[in-house]
Amino acid sequence: MPTVTVEGPILRDIEKKRSLVKGITDVVVETYGIEHVTVLIKENPPENVGAGGTLIADRHRARESD
Amino acid sequence: MPTVTVEGPILRDIEKKRSLVKGITDVVVETYGIEHVTVLIKENPPENVGAGGTLIADRHRARESD
Amino acid sequence: MPTVTVEGPILRDIEKKRSLVKGITDVVVETYGIEHVTVLIKENPPENVGAGGTLIADRHRARESD
Amino acid sequence: MPTVTVEGPILRDIEKKRSLVKGITDVVVETYGIEHVTVLIKENPPENVGAGGTLIADRHRARESD
Amino acid sequence: MPTVTVEGPILRDIEKKRSLVKGITDVVVETYGIEHVTVLIKENPPENVGAGGTLIADRHRARESD
Amino acid sequence: MPTVTVEGPILRDIEKKRSLVKGITDVVVETYGIEHVTVLIKENPPENVGAGGTLIADRHRARESD
Repeated sequence: MPTVTVEGPILRDIEKKRSLVKGITDVVVETYGIEHVTVLIKENPPENVGAGGTLIADRHRARESD
Repeated sequence: MPTVTVEGPILRDIEKKRSLVKGITDVVVETYGIEHVTVLIKENPPENVGAGGTLIADRHRARESD
Repeated sequence: MPTVTVEGPILRDIEKKRSLVKGITDVVVETYGIEHVTVLIKENPPENVGAGGTLIADRHRARESD
Repeated sequence: MPTVTVEGPILRDIEKKRSLVKGITDVVVETYGIEHVTVLIKENPPENVGAGGTLIADRHRARESD
Repeated sequence: MPTVTVEGPILRDIEKKRSLVKGITDVVVETYGIEHVTVLIKENPPENVGAGGTLIADRHRARESD
Repeated sequence: MPTVTVEGPILRDIEKKRSLVKGITDVVVETYGIEHVTVLIKENPPENVGAGGTLIADRHRARESD
């Protein structure tokens, strides 16, 4: 502990994962003064996320068909 | 926020995901009066879920071999 | 399973908790065809939630001082 | 989404919560390019957290009695 | 990591928390061969948990009035 | 409820999953005296976990190139 969980969309670029983990860890160490920080990146496919009652997958489709 | 996470089995039918997200969002908006509702559907394979000390995968097998 | 977790603001009215649990359970049973649904209501105080980089507690204050 | 959950010890200083939320949000916006970031700060009392098989509450006591 | 979260009812006895953390940690170390195990005990009041569409708080009341 | 979530690395051996679920369930039943225990095993790939600010995937690489 602390353990930080990030629920977000799919991240294809490992460089982005690297900077996400590094950036969050720095902020958390600064806040709590504890070095043992774990960060879990959770990637959610667009058909498994709803925003405002609609699947993200359906929003994408709607946009593409404009 | 609110953010709702549903931990369930695998859902192959996107139509079911659609109605799950729509139905939960309606209930949550009704309760809190807040429109920004996020729903995360988490699909757990049967070998990663235990119920009553037994993997769901093993329950399925036991049933099939009856 | 399924287990549903609702992360939201504080809900003072138990009647709202009742209808939240009832409503979500109905939707989840309809989706998965499984009766054993657990719903966890998590109440987050406004000083523990950030939206867009600002604590909800500070948004409330800003609004009150208008 | 993205939604970030921070499981940590109790944070008495609201200023620390402010900078935690601000710092994490900046990193997450930078990573995903999405502005709607929610951060949930979860405060865990020392008798509810185990590290290496021992409650944090018991570690504190051991240290104080040295 | 590994991080284990236990969502359960309120546990008043710290001795129970001690044995819960010790017992889970032993099982997790045995499984993964990793010593750094964090256990988070989450206590949910009966008015915040629904089972089968009913609040646990209402089940308790129904039982008491029998 | 209780529901136990284990966030750990990938577990290829189903026998390990079996004993993890069985062992945790025994401890939880002993603690709470409730039989309905659900265990969710979450497998996190090494590029999605940060420890101390570094991806586990990068730690593995560093070790291999020694």
